[in-house]
Amino acid sequence: MINEKSLAWGRSKSCIRELAGYASARKAEIGIENVFDFSIGNPSVPAPPQVNDTIRALLDNTDSTMLHGYTPAPGLPSLRKAIADDLNKRYDANIIPEMVYVCCGAAAGLCSSIRALLCDGDEVIAFAPFFAEYTVFTEAACGRLLSVPPMDDMQPDISALESAITEKTKILIINTPNNPSGVLLTEDSLNKIADVMRKAQEKYGHSIYLLSDEPYRELVFDGVSTKSATRFYDNTIICYSFSKSLSLPGERIGYVAVSSTMAERQDIFDAICGAARGYGYVNAPSLMQRVVENCMGLTSDISAYKRNRDILYKGLSDCGFDCIKPDGAFYLFVKSPEPDAKAFSERAKKYELMLVPGDDFGVKGYVRLAYCVSEKTIVDSMPSFKKLAEEYGL
Amino acid sequence: MINEKSLAWGRSKSCIRELAGYASARKAEIGIENVFDFSIGNPSVPAPPQVNDTIRALLDNTDSTMLHGYTPAPGLPSLRKAIADDLNKRYDANIIPEMVYVCCGAAAGLCSSIRALLCDGDEVIAFAPFFAEYTVFTEAACGRLLSVPPMDDMQPDISALESAITEKTKILIINTPNNPSGVLLTEDSLNKIADVMRKAQEKYGHSIYLLSDEPYRELVFDGVSTKSATRFYDNTIICYSFSKSLSLPGERIGYVAVSSTMAERQDIFDAICGAARGYGYVNAPSLMQRVVENCMGLTSDISAYKRNRDILYKGLSDCGFDCIKPDGAFYLFVKSPEPDAKAFSERAKKYELMLVPGDDFGVKGYVRLAYCVSEKTIVDSMPSFKKLAEEYGL
Repeated sequence: MINEKSLAWGRSKSCIRELAGYASARKAEIGIENVFDFSIGNPSVPAPPQVNDTIRALLDNTDSTMLHGYTPAPGLPSLRKAIADDLNKRYDANIIPEMVYVCCGAAAGLCSSIRALLCDGDEVIAFAPFFAEYTVFTEAACGRLLSVPPMDDMQPDISALESAITEKTKILIINTPNNPSGVLLTEDSLNKIADVMRKAQEKYGHSIYLLSDEPYRELVFDGVSTKSATRFYDNTIICYSFSKSLSLPGERIGYVAVSSTMAERQDIFDAICGAARGYGYVNAPSLMQRVVENCMGLTSDISAYKRNRDILYKGLSDCGFDCIKPDGAFYLFVKSPEPDAKAFSERAKKYELMLVPGDDFGVKGYVRLAYCVSEKTIVDSMPSFKKLAEEYGL
Repeated sequence: MINEKSLAWGRSKSCIRELAGYASARKAEIGIENVFDFSIGNPSVPAPPQVNDTIRALLDNTDSTMLHGYTPAPGLPSLRKAIADDLNKRYDANIIPEMVYVCCGAAAGLCSSIRALLCDGDEVIAFAPFFAEYTVFTEAACGRLLSVPPMDDMQPDISALESAITEKTKILIINTPNNPSGVLLTEDSLNKIADVMRKAQEKYGHSIYLLSDEPYRELVFDGVSTKSATRFYDNTIICYSFSKSLSLPGERIGYVAVSSTMAERQDIFDAICGAARGYGYVNAPSLMQRVVENCMGLTSDISAYKRNRDILYKGLSDCGFDCIKPDGAFYLFVKSPEPDAKAFSERAKKYELMLVPGDDFGVKGYVRLAYCVSEKTIVDSMPSFKKLAEEYGL
């Protein structure tokens, strides 16, 4: 007699949360330094000092009713302009301030955008591996999510995309750098995706939207970078969060930006605002709006993640594990030495290694390691990985 | 080809926002001191000093990755306990910490609760006058909102409620003290509402939930107070926001509390968590969770609102206007001297008085004055009200 979907979402525990819970219990039992917890994607690097300095200055210099008061629903005008300027400067992104909607993190932006776009019977496509919440967000908007399997290097399989797109397709979600693989979509992949989508739009006679989920955008190593997705495809919507770049995941601050190259941009923007209103989003947290405006373009110390990646990738490869080399984010995707990644994850627990099975991300036979941990944890974990590898005869 | 409902919500401008926009333009034109802007319910009293002091202390003493990091989805355990303790101590409310879900303001709590409870074809009832967003929140959850007209004193019409409840009714929303009338539901009204609901539950053989929207709970004058709604009716869910009590409306922090007297409380709580997940709420802003925990039970200077009420109520009554005396909140509901409140609101603009027509709140023939303004604004507005009254021959 209550909403069955909501109940199911509330009851279903994600693999990640379960493993993290187990890890916490083990830490209490045997000591935090003896558990190698790669379960959770919580930034391990502090926010840049400018974040807390900005908060202090705001407390000293801003009237309380202003500082903590309502902002316009789409965000402070000065922040919307700062976001557009930053996107255009760094990524050549075609964004005007009027098409920026500041929101409570990328999740809020994704949910509002999906709800804004979907009509009865519409479908969303995501490239596996993908963030499991995409399925929940789509179902909450009464849509259906289809998954397209990846190539061996975790770049999207373009011909599989061609077969998956139908007249019901309204949205394609990309996530680059990717959670859980750390892989960055190449310009070649982006061009091919855009081609397939343009052809499909023509064939079916309606718009298909590219939802570019970019919370890890700044966490890119080796100087690899791409232009904004808006430069590859007109009907693009960017969803961004400051969670990872500024290490503020709990503060819930991000934005949606609708490309100015989109013909129906005003309708789409209005519908996103309306969907957010219907979900109860009044405005993004007001103090944090001012903080991110003052910290635009800054990041926390990304080099720590690169060091972690280098040690972990080399270490695990040397042990004989087959790893996807991450271009960014703070995840490593490792092939399970046995077909069942869940069984592999269970066996790793014997060595206090907490590895998330990739099944929840829509890919079987892999585990995800979140290496947003201390360098010491990674170094100390190596003997355990060695033993685990030996157990598999690698 | 996009979601029509979302587009409509994004495009429809509320009367309040339109009038506030007009007021801003007038202020720029003729000077802020010459416009008497009663349009918006934004607290005019600063947050208590403990709010900013707590933020400073947190910045100095808490690790950044902890302070700004993810919290558990339903909120910090210590905060959930502090909320339950506070509700039980001050309102004898029957709440256990496990039934507290900390969320991004009352709007998020209302939306998540409505979505959690509604199945296909279910209806929500609200007593007019009511906050216009209830309609949007209900429609976003694919439900239908019905309005029950008030008695002359703005207490609910119990026999009208009896006629409105059907087998489709799943939720009754109450809002006390009320936006826009400032009226507090009496214990007698609460008892009668509970009786009607219990009878309806028995008659239709399913639960009907009381959603008690209480953002103005602490803004009560003249020592009037009631026990918690949970003491009147078992199937009660409290939705609360710290927006008004602590003058933090932009920070988006509040909670949902499910009564421990509810038989299906665990299912309902899980479904609320699930609905929030589907809407993209990850956790309530982490810094503010710690702030409200440290400021539990405090309020900003409520006496300022009482002074404003007294001056405004007496002043307008002396002019000959027929006013509902508010017990709390910071709204005064005034009967329009002509049947069309919109026409009255238009005429008031001649005297730079910004009064919101009550039509958007589901009651015709009234205007709402938000008196969360400076005392000076109220005193200075009196000559204008006098002229307006004279124009109507009051």
